[in-house]
Amino acid sequence: MDELGRLPGVGPKSAQRIAFHLLKVAKEDALRLSRVIAEVKERTMLCEVCFNVGVSARCPICSDPRRDSSVLCVVEDPRDIVAVERTREFRGRYHVLGGALNPIEGVGPEQLRVRELLARIDGEGIGEVILCTNPNLEGDATAMYLARLLRPLGVKVTRIASGLPVGGDLEYADELTLGRALEGRREVEA
Amino acid sequence: MDELGRLPGVGPKSAQRIAFHLLKVAKEDALRLSRVIAEVKERTMLCEVCFNVGVSARCPICSDPRRDSSVLCVVEDPRDIVAVERTREFRGRYHVLGGALNPIEGVGPEQLRVRELLARIDGEGIGEVILCTNPNLEGDATAMYLARLLRPLGVKVTRIASGLPVGGDLEYADELTLGRALEGRREVEA
Repeated sequence: MDELGRLPGVGPKSAQRIAFHLLKVAKEDALRLSRVIAEVKERTMLCEVCFNVGVSARCPICSDPRRDSSVLCVVEDPRDIVAVERTREFRGRYHVLGGALNPIEGVGPEQLRVRELLARIDGEGIGEVILCTNPNLEGDATAMYLARLLRPLGVKVTRIASGLPVGGDLEYADELTLGRALEGRREVEA
Repeated sequence: MDELGRLPGVGPKSAQRIAFHLLKVAKEDALRLSRVIAEVKERTMLCEVCFNVGVSARCPICSDPRRDSSVLCVVEDPRDIVAVERTREFRGRYHVLGGALNPIEGVGPEQLRVRELLARIDGEGIGEVILCTNPNLEGDATAMYLARLLRPLGVKVTRIASGLPVGGDLEYADELTLGRALEGRREVEA
């Protein structure tokens, strides 16, 4: 129960419930869980190019020749790659920073993979960098910091749009979001 | 209770609770509510210019000379004006359509204040129309319809941005919204 309770989103009650469940199930089911946990830790590694998680030195996206190597999407976390891939809107490659700037928690540029990002711009013929960090305080600060570093390198730097969610309603939007949606309005194409 | 139950968001239980509350309160409190309901219906009218609700022929926004008359924000409903005003990002004027296109419910362009909108473009020296209908199916369709009508008149037509809400998280964004946020990315200004 102590070990289970350390997992995110698992409180003492859930830990107890899971523990008793494991006592009750067939031995092979419990051992399968035990085995995959060990396997995940032994077999996974970070991609040497983009720092996505994978099972080989290069992740499936970096080793896919059909991906557009001229556009780079910078995200905080490997989970964010999953989110962007799900949209099927992006055919370029990624770079995982490993977090966002957060001075209070002691996360500065040295703790993120910023140096590795700058090295890729020179080496890979990248024409556009999309700053796809979260649209919150830390993510916005990280995007601004990176934009200032990247622009002198002659690369196009873009930021994902803030605005109203699809299917949303003006009435339920908070002021800040609606303000950004207005500020970020775009001319309607014919 | 029957009358109260017709209000939006008031179910039979709430109607009963309100009814018994009105029986209990002092006579002047109940009569004050009765009076303001009657007053609202007698005194309010629609602005003759933008169709916002107000207490005179011209609403406070249309009669304010400090508002920028060259930018027009087109909304579905007077409530949306309240939402946009709260952002303090917009200093132009409004036009209330009175709904959105909805063929299933029989709402076509004739049911909305489209003709009145077109008349204003000619008459008021408007340079930009911001289509601020809701970012859902009906609102998007209405925006596209209006854009097609307005562009030949030589006016700049813009649409509010769709994207991630401020303070949001990539992980919790739905695919459609994140896809639009990527598609609508903007170059970072220096």
